[in-house]
Amino acid sequence: MRMLTFDLNRHGKPSLYHQIAEQIKTQIGNGRLPANTRLPTVRQLADQLGVTRLTVQNAYAELQADGWVEAVVGRGTFVSRSVQPHAILDKIGRRLTADGVLDDILQLDHVVGVRSMALAHPDDAFFPIDEFWAGLNRVRGDAESVMSYTSIQGDPQLRVVLADMVREEGITAVPEQIMIISGAMQGIALIAQAHTRPGDTVLIDAPTFLGTLNILHAQNLTLINVPLDGEGPCLDTLERLIQRHRPRFYYAIPNYHNPTGICMSLARREGLLQLAQRYQLPIIEDDIYGKLYYDAPPPPLLKALDPGDHVIYLSSFSKILMPGLRTGYLITHNDALRSRLLELRRATDLGGPGLVQRATAVFLQSGGLKRHLRKIRPIYKQRRDVLLEAMQTHLPHGVSWTRPSGGFSAWLTLPRVFAPGELYRTALQRGFAFTPGDAYLPHSDENDHFRLCFGNQSPTAIRAGVKVLGQIIREKM
Amino acid sequence: MRMLTFDLNRHGKPSLYHQIAEQIKTQIGNGRLPANTRLPTVRQLADQLGVTRLTVQNAYAELQADGWVEAVVGRGTFVSRSVQPHAILDKIGRRLTADGVLDDILQLDHVVGVRSMALAHPDDAFFPIDEFWAGLNRVRGDAESVMSYTSIQGDPQLRVVLADMVREEGITAVPEQIMIISGAMQGIALIAQAHTRPGDTVLIDAPTFLGTLNILHAQNLTLINVPLDGEGPCLDTLERLIQRHRPRFYYAIPNYHNPTGICMSLARREGLLQLAQRYQLPIIEDDIYGKLYYDAPPPPLLKALDPGDHVIYLSSFSKILMPGLRTGYLITHNDALRSRLLELRRATDLGGPGLVQRATAVFLQSGGLKRHLRKIRPIYKQRRDVLLEAMQTHLPHGVSWTRPSGGFSAWLTLPRVFAPGELYRTALQRGFAFTPGDAYLPHSDENDHFRLCFGNQSPTAIRAGVKVLGQIIREKM
Repeated sequence: MRMLTFDLNRHGKPSLYHQIAEQIKTQIGNGRLPANTRLPTVRQLADQLGVTRLTVQNAYAELQADGWVEAVVGRGTFVSRSVQPHAILDKIGRRLTADGVLDDILQLDHVVGVRSMALAHPDDAFFPIDEFWAGLNRVRGDAESVMSYTSIQGDPQLRVVLADMVREEGITAVPEQIMIISGAMQGIALIAQAHTRPGDTVLIDAPTFLGTLNILHAQNLTLINVPLDGEGPCLDTLERLIQRHRPRFYYAIPNYHNPTGICMSLARREGLLQLAQRYQLPIIEDDIYGKLYYDAPPPPLLKALDPGDHVIYLSSFSKILMPGLRTGYLITHNDALRSRLLELRRATDLGGPGLVQRATAVFLQSGGLKRHLRKIRPIYKQRRDVLLEAMQTHLPHGVSWTRPSGGFSAWLTLPRVFAPGELYRTALQRGFAFTPGDAYLPHSDENDHFRLCFGNQSPTAIRAGVKVLGQIIREKM
Repeated sequence: MRMLTFDLNRHGKPSLYHQIAEQIKTQIGNGRLPANTRLPTVRQLADQLGVTRLTVQNAYAELQADGWVEAVVGRGTFVSRSVQPHAILDKIGRRLTADGVLDDILQLDHVVGVRSMALAHPDDAFFPIDEFWAGLNRVRGDAESVMSYTSIQGDPQLRVVLADMVREEGITAVPEQIMIISGAMQGIALIAQAHTRPGDTVLIDAPTFLGTLNILHAQNLTLINVPLDGEGPCLDTLERLIQRHRPRFYYAIPNYHNPTGICMSLARREGLLQLAQRYQLPIIEDDIYGKLYYDAPPPPLLKALDPGDHVIYLSSFSKILMPGLRTGYLITHNDALRSRLLELRRATDLGGPGLVQRATAVFLQSGGLKRHLRKIRPIYKQRRDVLLEAMQTHLPHGVSWTRPSGGFSAWLTLPRVFAPGELYRTALQRGFAFTPGDAYLPHSDENDHFRLCFGNQSPTAIRAGVKVLGQIIREKM
């Protein structure tokens, strides 16, 4: 049995048992406590730390619930055999392309032994499970209908509810102008197919959402970077790029941009729409984070400000409710485009599942989303604040970062370039995951970057993670 | 109020009330009873027909449950206002392409006033609703996990259950060789993307599933027809086509081929695999109807007979359970192909929903599928028999058809060519829908064809529908 080391804050939050659990996770993650290591008994650890046995019991229960340790009756508590399965970690970090990193971070989310700040994922501890299952059971009355083929455009009831919902956000759309999609990503893929042929040029931010980069690469499009500043895309450059490249569309994330967290200013939104009008440029507005604001609400949506139907609006419930819903929506007033998108969808899959769409409609109709947002905004705001404070405390001089006012992610810039993936792989070996910046940039840069997500880790875990990261950067620099 | 006409069989099955309801549907469908027509009172109709009031009440209740009539308290029973909404019927039949017809038949399934034999749809009256919802509620214990992002390859638990299930069908595969897809159609789209570039040539049956034709057209592939006889594809021709065109794959539906219902003979399966081996030709085996046999079970699957990993196996739960599950599966032992398919899927959507996948796993684990198949096979066998008998009785000399030994559809051949869509649109005006054959054939033919599906109509409705069809053909010939 190994001696564990702790550094506990005995006054105030977070609770002692949670601190103990998180510090054991750090020692499991960095390999100090390998798989199958026996932990001290509850009594031993309580004595060592001078805490009650109940506190240690609670810490062990949390570790067990998260899969980091296993209790064997009559023998004790052991570090889980499934911690850091090398078969998985060996496969991680091999390809730093958008597709490779997307593959990695989706897998890492399930790996016990890694504290992942790599995935922009809401915390499953706050999922509105009870209310959603109540909705599922209400939908049982419509079972014959929802378990048949759904309208390819999506459940009519959900589209009616969404038309009401987006009206409050300044978008005037009838249900026929709304299309339900399997998450915003499917919308991006369909719009790109509808608007381009292989070899065409499109504009994206540098950096931008790696899922979008992956889709556009897969469709063999030529990607041109639009530089960002703290207010959004730099419009002078954007205009020159439009003139020079005649792009087929510009893909934008005005609210709490992924990966930077930047919220586009009102002036920038208005200027962007003027360019769209002047050059007849379609704009894809990806708004999956728009309702997750932690300071002031964001300025009006591009789609709400758009007089000329240049904006194709996309959103989803992955970040504000639960990613597993795989339910997003697309709004365009361009009938020909919508017909084309439905045609492309019929050549992709046949829509649905109606069950999940109808249950989401019932959830929205009951006011569930508003209640849920009121509950989770303060939680994620606190995590954002903890992340900013932890970076200030633990990251060495020369590292800079964005200050997200919403969403789930911050973008860090290092003062020099390391070997590709070097920091990423070292961090993984110590049980900590972020997302390497290369995946967000179509071309290499003079600095190393990465994204840190704060949605699905507790404040204590965020502090612990950033501390590990600071140590690694210091060692490497 | 209009006088209704009836022709009732008072001895034996089906029950009188069901005959009355179906005959009123026919008169609504053909326009004799337009929307808002007042029906006789229960007492009036009971007196007219010499049946009990309860019989008429039951008939009206069935019509009301299906949405064909509405009861207005104190005023009587009226043909529903939503019968044959002209806004929809006007849009139907305009495009006889695969995409246009697919769009039509999905919409027609929801149109009140049309008896649709156009869609290969199981009867929702027999959906295993109670057992599936019990599964959904059991999955609640895994809610945090299933409502997060799922593995892009599909729920691990479902893949484990499927590996066991397909073993009984002669396929040896580990869960890692199985990929969950949003219905077999998504699998076809992904495989075509993985195996081809625009302009490449692929082999399909003539006729073949219109959803596949639509996908292959959308991907700009060159389609070469393989002729079919009663045993399956003609192998001599197939071999010549392979030699001449060097196709990227052959798409086959060995079990209860859609639209013909043909089951490929064992000799033909073996011969096909020899060609696949000789020419290193990938074969897509679409097996969504394989478990719906009404006479003898089908010969072994191509995938089970395949020694060389040439076969990519596809199936789904749309026909054997419920289409709304949108859950299918793909099996290949080719690791590089599977990696490529997962990569393409990450550039399409992000998989899931895990909820539906896990609930399907629970349903399968409980033995629900086997119980369900034992229940529905005799039902669909009876409908198949009724269809064959009704065609024999009502269709004029010169019309020929296939005799399906499984699945949901029969393929009819008319002795001459009518103007494109002529029969289709006339039938719709009389409240009856089938699927026009043009949508199943990449090129025009010397005969008119169409598909009749018998899965989602009662035996009485099948008889009534085929009778209408026979009248139309006679008039037009």
